[in-house]
Amino acid sequence: MKLFSFWQSSASYRVRIALNLKGLDAHYVSINLSPDVQAQLKPDYLDLNPEGRIPAIAVDEGLIGQSMAIMEWLEELHPEPALLPGDPWQRAKCRQFANTIACDIHPLNNASVLRWLTGELEVEQAKLMKWYKHWINRGFEPLEKQAAASEAEFLFGDAPGMAEICLIPQMFKGRQFGMKFETFPTLCALEEKCLTLDAFERARPENQPDAPENL
Amino acid sequence: MKLFSFWQSSASYRVRIALNLKGLDAHYVSINLSPDVQAQLKPDYLDLNPEGRIPAIAVDEGLIGQSMAIMEWLEELHPEPALLPGDPWQRAKCRQFANTIACDIHPLNNASVLRWLTGELEVEQAKLMKWYKHWINRGFEPLEKQAAASEAEFLFGDAPGMAEICLIPQMFKGRQFGMKFETFPTLCALEEKCLTLDAFERARPENQPDAPENL
Repeated sequence: MKLFSFWQSSASYRVRIALNLKGLDAHYVSINLSPDVQAQLKPDYLDLNPEGRIPAIAVDEGLIGQSMAIMEWLEELHPEPALLPGDPWQRAKCRQFANTIACDIHPLNNASVLRWLTGELEVEQAKLMKWYKHWINRGFEPLEKQAAASEAEFLFGDAPGMAEICLIPQMFKGRQFGMKFETFPTLCALEEKCLTLDAFERARPENQPDAPENL
Repeated sequence: MKLFSFWQSSASYRVRIALNLKGLDAHYVSINLSPDVQAQLKPDYLDLNPEGRIPAIAVDEGLIGQSMAIMEWLEELHPEPALLPGDPWQRAKCRQFANTIACDIHPLNNASVLRWLTGELEVEQAKLMKWYKHWINRGFEPLEKQAAASEAEFLFGDAPGMAEICLIPQMFKGRQFGMKFETFPTLCALEEKCLTLDAFERARPENQPDAPENL
């Protein structure tokens, strides 16, 4: 199994955590998303993955992209340890939490979108930051409420799963943009707890083989 | 079961199709997303759904939001007819297709984002259209390739599922913006085929109880 990833990509970060939690090994293939390289749009990668995005997983059957689809696939093939709770209603709430990040927050703040805003739309830096923070806050407010109401050790049980897998990389990205998340104390405490776990620690951007040495 | 929906909301349109395909009835509750109403952000709806978004489904256990999470939940509780293929690899490819729309296309072109662009960022109409078309084309190109390579009656078998459920509402939205999709002939043929089916027909925006009478 190969994982096409980039150290800074938060969607790749999700899949790295999922693989680690499940104890699965994948050969790391770096796809450099830097604006001056954009390896994801080079012909040799597009031949493999016409979407021109990462993460993607390649196995004998072919290639699969989209982090949420990859996680569901991993969950079906390797059910234990589970990334989703056992109870259908709790599974739904866990997927809802994860999708709030994957569909409502991350897509608006990813690198290619921010480049379009500053490039094609000539949005200046202060307004870009306002945009960035708006979509984080709009999404994180209900997530904080939900997290604060949870009585479990993690969001949906005694182990982290799909919800935490989406949350921690999104907070990493926000911190890169200078966000402190001080109005989201429950989510910050959860982040701290997750990052003490080996599966999250090994998946961190700075611990990837393609991360710069002096971060 | 209650469905919180708005006739023009393409994410609500997804859930309407899914309910119809599974033969499930839900009481339709209109949440008016119009800029001058914004019922999704009113206190009585926020009490039910702190995310302030639609679609959402309310049942005895509570409320669940996020169309992708709702569909997975429906699939688990009512497995037949299935929205996902039986084979794990095909399920993964189907979810990938659906997530390309749900995570890479729709979030950039939904109403609240377009309002932010024209409002806060003062983006003019021509540039807004360029933005709109860019994200559609960026996502649809690989989807057209994938659809053209499919030998099945629908994308992933002999019946429509999660992939078509995401595709048709996205094309509806694009057409509202004047897009003709002429460079995506396979997807257009698929759209035409889906719209002949009762489950899709009944879910169409113009057939909802809150649609204006003279469209």
